[in-house]
Amino acid sequence: MAKKVQSHVDPFYYHYPAGATIVTSHAGGCDNAMAVAWHSAVSREPPLYVISISPERFTHGMLLESGEFTVNFMPADQAELVALVGGSSGSDVDKFDAFSIDAEPGSQVAAPILATAFAGYECRVVGRHTYGDHDLFIGAIMAVQWEESAYTDGRWLDVERLSPIVYLGKDLYGGATPPALIDGDELVRETLGGG
Amino acid sequence: MAKKVQSHVDPFYYHYPAGATIVTSHAGGCDNAMAVAWHSAVSREPPLYVISISPERFTHGMLLESGEFTVNFMPADQAELVALVGGSSGSDVDKFDAFSIDAEPGSQVAAPILATAFAGYECRVVGRHTYGDHDLFIGAIMAVQWEESAYTDGRWLDVERLSPIVYLGKDLYGGATPPALIDGDELVRETLGGG
Repeated sequence: MAKKVQSHVDPFYYHYPAGATIVTSHAGGCDNAMAVAWHSAVSREPPLYVISISPERFTHGMLLESGEFTVNFMPADQAELVALVGGSSGSDVDKFDAFSIDAEPGSQVAAPILATAFAGYECRVVGRHTYGDHDLFIGAIMAVQWEESAYTDGRWLDVERLSPIVYLGKDLYGGATPPALIDGDELVRETLGGG
Repeated sequence: MAKKVQSHVDPFYYHYPAGATIVTSHAGGCDNAMAVAWHSAVSREPPLYVISISPERFTHGMLLESGEFTVNFMPADQAELVALVGGSSGSDVDKFDAFSIDAEPGSQVAAPILATAFAGYECRVVGRHTYGDHDLFIGAIMAVQWEESAYTDGRWLDVERLSPIVYLGKDLYGGATPPALIDGDELVRETLGGG
């Protein structure tokens, strides 16, 4: 493909899709929820997860205060909830009340896990680094919650039963098509003709 | 949903889907490519991107040596290439040669951008942090390349024209369904009844 090239693009959205998440926090007796598309796994052992949060967000102060958060992975039928959470601030409104969010405190952290999430990570902050206009918060995953029926072998999300939100930037929320199984190791053996 | 709860799950794959990327590096006169599913945007201004790379990966040493990388965002029809790249190591094989990868050096970095990527970020490493069994490499995005025809208004990936890879863990590669447009701000106004 002949590509357009540009230096210092702002805003930059070319890296989507990403899974859409709702990050929750709990501090000062209150819960808050925030839509986060900038997130990633970091380490397998110990399991660590990172989220990138602007200091302008209400969640930022709650993370500093509590040192805890949860990351909730949402199904496609919850896209409106993600958009509602993303379109409002905890400084103006109690989102759990205003949007009738069903949630319970985590098993290891006080921040809540959403009832409609297909999986949630309960995290304790173990590192924070300021980069540009955001802070990276690295969380140790203290516990995982997941909807067993949504997974094959308890591990692989069964997209035909539960399609996850695929966020494409702006206000665009899609789902995932049923995936193909492609065995990379086998494919490498076939391609390189090795043993 | 009534969720299963578990502490310290290993391996943990509950957070997928993620966009599948191919990260390239260039050092000592050689190119390498690696499949990376642990990546995220970090900051909008300046634009920064993070990838999480195990020190066991061949790419890790190349990043330390060169201080540069590119992140290539791949269409669903390139899932086999991602699997091939993911199933092999640069310590054993020249992947660009073995898998006939069409690529050119970036405009700002020596690491190459893949011809079949719908977008690529050219990054210079501005930070590295070891967490658990991986290193976070934070890259300043020096340039963006994208296939203009794949985007609406030059910005929003047109999934009906070019479906991105949606990685679901293990060897599972899907695509994205055409997204719905959900205006969060408008939805909040409707829900809260505000002005």
